[in-house]
Amino acid sequence: MDKLKTDRKRNEYKKQIVDYLVSRNLRGFRETFLELHPTDQVELFHEIERSLQKQVLLFLSPAEFADLFEGLELEDQLTVFEGLSYQYAVSMFNTMSADDVADFLAEIDTDRSQDILSSMDLEEAKRVEELMAYAPKTAGAIMTKEFVRLSVESTAKDVIAELRETAPDAETIYYLYVIDQQQRLAGVVSLRDLIISTPEMTVEDIMSTQVVSVNEDEDQEDVARLIKEYDFLAVPVVTPDKRLVGIITVDDVIDVLEEETTEDFDEFSASRGATDLSLTAYTAAKKRAPWLIILMFFGLVTANIIGIFENTLEQVVLLAAFMPLIMGTAGNTGTQSLAVAVRGLATGSFERGGVWKTVKRELGTGVMLGVICMLVLMAIIYTFYDNDFTLAFIVGFSLFAALSVAAVIGATVPIIINKFKIDPAVASGPFITTFNDIISLMIYFSIATSLLDRL
Amino acid sequence: MDKLKTDRKRNEYKKQIVDYLVSRNLRGFRETFLELHPTDQVELFHEIERSLQKQVLLFLSPAEFADLFEGLELEDQLTVFEGLSYQYAVSMFNTMSADDVADFLAEIDTDRSQDILSSMDLEEAKRVEELMAYAPKTAGAIMTKEFVRLSVESTAKDVIAELRETAPDAETIYYLYVIDQQQRLAGVVSLRDLIISTPEMTVEDIMSTQVVSVNEDEDQEDVARLIKEYDFLAVPVVTPDKRLVGIITVDDVIDVLEEETTEDFDEFSASRGATDLSLTAYTAAKKRAPWLIILMFFGLVTANIIGIFENTLEQVVLLAAFMPLIMGTAGNTGTQSLAVAVRGLATGSFERGGVWKTVKRELGTGVMLGVICMLVLMAIIYTFYDNDFTLAFIVGFSLFAALSVAAVIGATVPIIINKFKIDPAVASGPFITTFNDIISLMIYFSIATSLLDRL
Repeated sequence: MDKLKTDRKRNEYKKQIVDYLVSRNLRGFRETFLELHPTDQVELFHEIERSLQKQVLLFLSPAEFADLFEGLELEDQLTVFEGLSYQYAVSMFNTMSADDVADFLAEIDTDRSQDILSSMDLEEAKRVEELMAYAPKTAGAIMTKEFVRLSVESTAKDVIAELRETAPDAETIYYLYVIDQQQRLAGVVSLRDLIISTPEMTVEDIMSTQVVSVNEDEDQEDVARLIKEYDFLAVPVVTPDKRLVGIITVDDVIDVLEEETTEDFDEFSASRGATDLSLTAYTAAKKRAPWLIILMFFGLVTANIIGIFENTLEQVVLLAAFMPLIMGTAGNTGTQSLAVAVRGLATGSFERGGVWKTVKRELGTGVMLGVICMLVLMAIIYTFYDNDFTLAFIVGFSLFAALSVAAVIGATVPIIINKFKIDPAVASGPFITTFNDIISLMIYFSIATSLLDRL
Repeated sequence: MDKLKTDRKRNEYKKQIVDYLVSRNLRGFRETFLELHPTDQVELFHEIERSLQKQVLLFLSPAEFADLFEGLELEDQLTVFEGLSYQYAVSMFNTMSADDVADFLAEIDTDRSQDILSSMDLEEAKRVEELMAYAPKTAGAIMTKEFVRLSVESTAKDVIAELRETAPDAETIYYLYVIDQQQRLAGVVSLRDLIISTPEMTVEDIMSTQVVSVNEDEDQEDVARLIKEYDFLAVPVVTPDKRLVGIITVDDVIDVLEEETTEDFDEFSASRGATDLSLTAYTAAKKRAPWLIILMFFGLVTANIIGIFENTLEQVVLLAAFMPLIMGTAGNTGTQSLAVAVRGLATGSFERGGVWKTVKRELGTGVMLGVICMLVLMAIIYTFYDNDFTLAFIVGFSLFAALSVAAVIGATVPIIINKFKIDPAVASGPFITTFNDIISLMIYFSIATSLLDRL
């Protein structure tokens, strides 16, 4: 079925499944619902009413519901969790992936999560607790503990037999990790390697010992970049003494990249955590207001600076007309440079290219843009404002100076911020634009004031 | 080896390999270089001087160099290509993936690409030509033709034997696609399914017939979203009559997502195609200048509008001081709303949530933000500007009106643009900000003019 057909089919399925739920047809429901891909189950569950959601819980075993629960957004998980019986919840957590359980338990209060952990199977609870101990956004925090471990002596035939037993539990069986007696990572066997070897070959013969692994404390973004660059399907996570503790798969990495992009966007627009469409207007306003108000105070600084030049303005009110043009163009140049820098930081291009090269390039770009815009603007003002060369020169030259500075500020501030690990929110688009506003206006009014007697 | 160690090792390797190249040690070079992952080969090749790059070509066979060539950026590919002998180039293209050959040949002039195609192996040339016929950014254009086809009658044992032969050529063997006699997609067998079945089971017994596929004309972004949502490793591409023509793998999809993100950023900052760090200052300026100049003309419109209110300004010059504050705050609100809309469009959230809901929410957010900022600002102006209530009211109320409008414009313009498939560049951040500037100033000066006699 192609995607269109999938969509149509999904609607038919949905109607059918809702009918089964309403008529309490257990068998009909299970036959249809359990055929669906977990992603479709999640979507359908998300769309139906609360009362029908409860019916779904009654019709599914904790193990069957576990797949669906893993796919839900945190908010939905919390709502559903409130309606679960304690025993159902514990059974469900026992069959979920340890990393998904850890993610969820980290979000409810400690007493309750401790209580649940104490009722869970010992082994699973231990895995979950290990994962919960990692700092957020590290390799350890996003890795999964469900993977296949091999020992060097096994033959290809043994491994295949073993996979028939354990495969359904593992997150991926496309890479199989080989450990030595100290639980240290010794090599990797891809399923591809395994399948093209003869049944009698041992793991030692097949495995590659050149395994790229990441440390458990590694930043999730670096892990994502590594997997992306090398086209890996998974990467093993090790402790400093090389013990294999988990793996990170490519689908987790896609989610990390998406998350980091959203963060970049939020920074770019000073709306951290507020670009989520599911927020209410009130919550969004509450999250966005502090940024706006802080930025408004910078606006008051600008107002004061203009106040200083009130005399100049009083003599030539026309100067006010070009303020938005100068501020706007400088702001746009700064934003373009910021985009270059943010993308460079996100894709790791600076590691190779060097920061100085970028700053020099942006200065060069800013100067060239400044010259072009200056010439165009001077010609227009000279023509349309009574051949007033002094006005044309003041506005044009201020624009040139403002653009040259703005390009450098737009590119360097995020790099500096990143280098010193300061909270990058202060380097976001609006802050840089506001900063550029202040500098451009100071340039503009200083030049205008010094040439005032010629106007 | 962990990542740090990889980096250190890479430097040692690099030094070693450069030494081998300089001393023309063929054997040493090949032993070290061919051990590296293709991604590392590419990086090393990119970093060394032109003369050493030529030495690499002499030391590698066309088939060995093909892997490296596939990984290079287009710009580097073009430079290298100019230095290749015709015969070397043809042999190299014969061993490259058809999709990579198609991507490259689309970038050189038609006469030369036709010439090369006519010298290539017939089968490979045909595959390349088929791929080149697709519109850019469609499933057909990004798919690979190197995949494993199975027929329903084969047994698991047969398939494994077959994989031992053909696997090294295929892009992925983790999903194997089953076709009927009309070449139509009939099912899928994952390597996982294959390995956990008994050797005598037939493909028909093992395969899943519920295959999600995409049409060859499907937009690449939709394909990427599908793979991401369902955590697929690959997805098959079919013609309208269901013939299987290729597959798209998860690593291609990560690149597509990255590409789309970069586009979103470029739009956000009106610097389309210019966020690439490898551009020279001159090229970057050339690409960015048109946007800046167009935006500068909008700035002239603003200058004209302010000119209309010259009388008002002449009477109360202080009004000019608050222009940047009102424009800036409205601009920031608009940008925040734009971020919400762009992210919503990128992640497909609107398909479910509905556009109206978002517009209403943004209006609500804008009004609330407007009220908060108005109250804060009125209090400050009243206190610090000689208890001038009229001034406080003009500035505060204008800010409220400007924010409410800006939030709605920021959210709706990109959605409308997207709906009517207009070039989305006109909905980019700077355009919306400029539009908001004009509206805010008109609100501000209209209110100020009407209350002028009270000031």
